[in-house]
Amino acid sequence: MQSTRDGDSYSFDMNPIATVRSCFGEKFGIPRQPLLADASRAAIQLLPPFDLAETIIDLQGNSHLWIIFHFHQVAGQWSPKVRPPRLGGNKKLGVFATRSPFRPNNIGLSAVRLIEIRTHPKVELIVGGADLLDGTPVLDIKPYIPYADALPTAANQFAKQAPPAKTVHIDGQALQTAKEYRDDWGIDLVRLIKQVLEQDPKPAYQNPGPERIYATKLCGFDLRWRYIHNAIEVVALEKLNITKQSQEWFYPKAAKCHKVTL
Amino acid sequence: MQSTRDGDSYSFDMNPIATVRSCFGEKFGIPRQPLLADASRAAIQLLPPFDLAETIIDLQGNSHLWIIFHFHQVAGQWSPKVRPPRLGGNKKLGVFATRSPFRPNNIGLSAVRLIEIRTHPKVELIVGGADLLDGTPVLDIKPYIPYADALPTAANQFAKQAPPAKTVHIDGQALQTAKEYRDDWGIDLVRLIKQVLEQDPKPAYQNPGPERIYATKLCGFDLRWRYIHNAIEVVALEKLNITKQSQEWFYPKAAKCHKVTL
Repeated sequence: MQSTRDGDSYSFDMNPIATVRSCFGEKFGIPRQPLLADASRAAIQLLPPFDLAETIIDLQGNSHLWIIFHFHQVAGQWSPKVRPPRLGGNKKLGVFATRSPFRPNNIGLSAVRLIEIRTHPKVELIVGGADLLDGTPVLDIKPYIPYADALPTAANQFAKQAPPAKTVHIDGQALQTAKEYRDDWGIDLVRLIKQVLEQDPKPAYQNPGPERIYATKLCGFDLRWRYIHNAIEVVALEKLNITKQSQEWFYPKAAKCHKVTL
Repeated sequence: MQSTRDGDSYSFDMNPIATVRSCFGEKFGIPRQPLLADASRAAIQLLPPFDLAETIIDLQGNSHLWIIFHFHQVAGQWSPKVRPPRLGGNKKLGVFATRSPFRPNNIGLSAVRLIEIRTHPKVELIVGGADLLDGTPVLDIKPYIPYADALPTAANQFAKQAPPAKTVHIDGQALQTAKEYRDDWGIDLVRLIKQVLEQDPKPAYQNPGPERIYATKLCGFDLRWRYIHNAIEVVALEKLNITKQSQEWFYPKAAKCHKVTL
């Protein structure tokens, strides 16, 4: 990293130390806070010249990590006031009072659970509960230090607790497909789909009828669902037809992310 | 912020959104984790074009904040293995398993307590418990969200709890000077000195005799102490003779940081 100073103004040239390979192929549907979808898996793959086993091997005594990353799909976009989806999407808050990606410097902060440290063939960390888009550039990895980071008396009036979970129904062909995926690759896709949809990805102010279909990309699948009687019903789970190159960048490669021992 | 992509390589040009004015005039003596010196005070002063009251006013429902900042005094310096002072300074750990400032991108992360939101004459946040050097450039401010950030089951084998506190003696002229400062400016300097020294700023492997004097700059004072019978004794607290210009940058100005109502 280089920094320059011009009068009182600094500018930092930062380089990603790692890239995320994750189950989340697009923004829509990603849990709004980490650890809400514990069944999710991501690989934090270190990039040269930082891809040295010695930089991460001592993380083995840590249960959780901080990932500081770049919201790369909204780079350069920010607004002084934003509409957090948690507040229904129609109340505005000052950007620094939210975790919105549309913020100056577009820096994100997520606590994730450390599952495995790999040093071969890639230097990478397998983590659970990550709310990270596939392809996310990572700026830093830090150990979670309970006595400094877990503040039992902290209060936040706008996000007092995790949002209530919706009921999610998945059956028929979609359930079969998700079960087969789990059997093949080690990820429990049934559980992941439920965790992702329980939090209701759609904006809270929308009140769609059963004819309206929502979709996102999850683990290389096109996942579709609708809303019936205040519950969520999965209507389709179909393998995406993607080229090798786009898969390389936008979807986790099986050997890198999916073959994780739970 | 701008980002460019060259093949798989990203580079980010980031701008500080704020500058820290704090009691800590130099690195030596700063608590190794935030909130260990609750008596400390800092002002997070927003910089143009981010110095809009509306960006921070909604933080009033939050007890704690995350400050993401730049370790500007060690910019560009990093090492794959570092020697954390907590481990005595003679055991090396991989950099991503530590909170060392000597890390790629030199990004720091601190939880601080929100004390006051000010919008006039400057747009700034007064915070307590900050382990931030005066002049630190801030990259982001985020609300602390208890259900996502406070992980009661998290474990870290290298930093299980805060280090044990040393006994600190302050009396005579130093005590009088510290008391007068408190009376004048609203900071409890006696308590701050005790909190800073209780954590023993010196490297753990050093075993100095009583003739060895240590010093740091705190709240515009030169603070000196020594070690006697495993306790710490303050030997001097003297006002630094600093020019207006250096005070502007390296020390908190009274009107900006010190006149805080506790």
